[in-house]
Amino acid sequence: MTTPEPSDVEQAGPAFLFDLDGTLIDSVYQHVIAWRAALQEVGVSLPVWKLHRRIGMSGGLFVNALLRELGTTLDEETLARLPGLHAEAYAAQLESVRPLPGAETLLRTLSEHDVPWAIATSGLERSAGLAREMLNLSEDTPMITRDRVRYAKPDPDLFLAAAAAIGVDITDSIVVGDSVWDLMAARRARAIGIGLLSGGYGREELIYGGAFRVYEDPADLLAHLDEVGVRRPL
Amino acid sequence: MTTPEPSDVEQAGPAFLFDLDGTLIDSVYQHVIAWRAALQEVGVSLPVWKLHRRIGMSGGLFVNALLRELGTTLDEETLARLPGLHAEAYAAQLESVRPLPGAETLLRTLSEHDVPWAIATSGLERSAGLAREMLNLSEDTPMITRDRVRYAKPDPDLFLAAAAAIGVDITDSIVVGDSVWDLMAARRARAIGIGLLSGGYGREELIYGGAFRVYEDPADLLAHLDEVGVRRPL
Repeated sequence: MTTPEPSDVEQAGPAFLFDLDGTLIDSVYQHVIAWRAALQEVGVSLPVWKLHRRIGMSGGLFVNALLRELGTTLDEETLARLPGLHAEAYAAQLESVRPLPGAETLLRTLSEHDVPWAIATSGLERSAGLAREMLNLSEDTPMITRDRVRYAKPDPDLFLAAAAAIGVDITDSIVVGDSVWDLMAARRARAIGIGLLSGGYGREELIYGGAFRVYEDPADLLAHLDEVGVRRPL
Repeated sequence: MTTPEPSDVEQAGPAFLFDLDGTLIDSVYQHVIAWRAALQEVGVSLPVWKLHRRIGMSGGLFVNALLRELGTTLDEETLARLPGLHAEAYAAQLESVRPLPGAETLLRTLSEHDVPWAIATSGLERSAGLAREMLNLSEDTPMITRDRVRYAKPDPDLFLAAAAAIGVDITDSIVVGDSVWDLMAARRARAIGIGLLSGGYGREELIYGGAFRVYEDPADLLAHLDEVGVRRPL
């Protein structure tokens, strides 16, 4: 029996793949209210907490799931109007959207320590662009949006594409998200999921959804980076 | 040894004490967004999920807790402006507030079966009046509002006053609420707490907060009234 040399078991450090809404920017509740308004506009009234629990899913799945639950259908034309109505209602709320505590510092700290990271969001390029400005990120920040993949979360495509974009192995990657759809997508992609409470899910919902660790927000994750294997000099 | 006669162990059936926002009407997210706007107006920026988790508390405790967490203070004059700013911002959202599924039917069904019930809310008489109209309740519906007691939730006063108003023993009463503040107040009042998911808390948060049962919304509680001891002919 030979003892393995340290070099034989050396692995790449973790890379981070971040969800955007509820994870880096404080926009979930504004999206919820915007969906409430958009659905009301086409005559669909759904309890608001049920909208909240489906934010972060692919928009198509979101609408399908809610209509099925309501036992109703909408014609093609009305369905096609929904994304626009939501975007309009969200724009009216945008003024109150802010970065989450610690988001900028967390991303900067990772970069300073050469830890690779990317953003992967079920949102569209346009709203991702606004978030990039809000977080003071450069134009070339690796960011995979809904329009870049076939299926959004809870499918794994967004995180797989994000890992590929920054040249890391998905199995060395940590997905950070606020919703159970991020965690399901992380598991399907074979990444490790970490949950943040900042999107308004309860701690146990995230744990039962597959989170290995749960932190409050980006600031809390930053304060505990050691726990997820990021080594940095004091 | 004597076997007790059924009449010796006879107890009154349960009475129900309902919270209002998030329990009977679908207004929690609108209150959250309104608090976000009111605090922003006085220069305080707090992550929205932290506001959500404190809705249903006494307004005074709510503001104190948030400012302490933020490590900031506000002068008396600014503090005094907050309730008005919140009321104004909530009024702008009111158009999208609806009764929760099953709320009216649940209350009517209880009345039809002579099960006593009352409403106890940390909100003020004015917004409780609007909710009463929305639920098609008569003017004389037993409803205890914030202005009728010394301390709101999580103190037990509101539920104690509600039980007294309808002449039931608080220890025979079931408190139905959507927040951990309802459940804490229920426990302090010696009532049994039941949680509803319709205010956006997670199931386990409510269980850990002291809920003996958790249902989705008033419609789901109505479908399971037998589980909490309401006997009614099929």
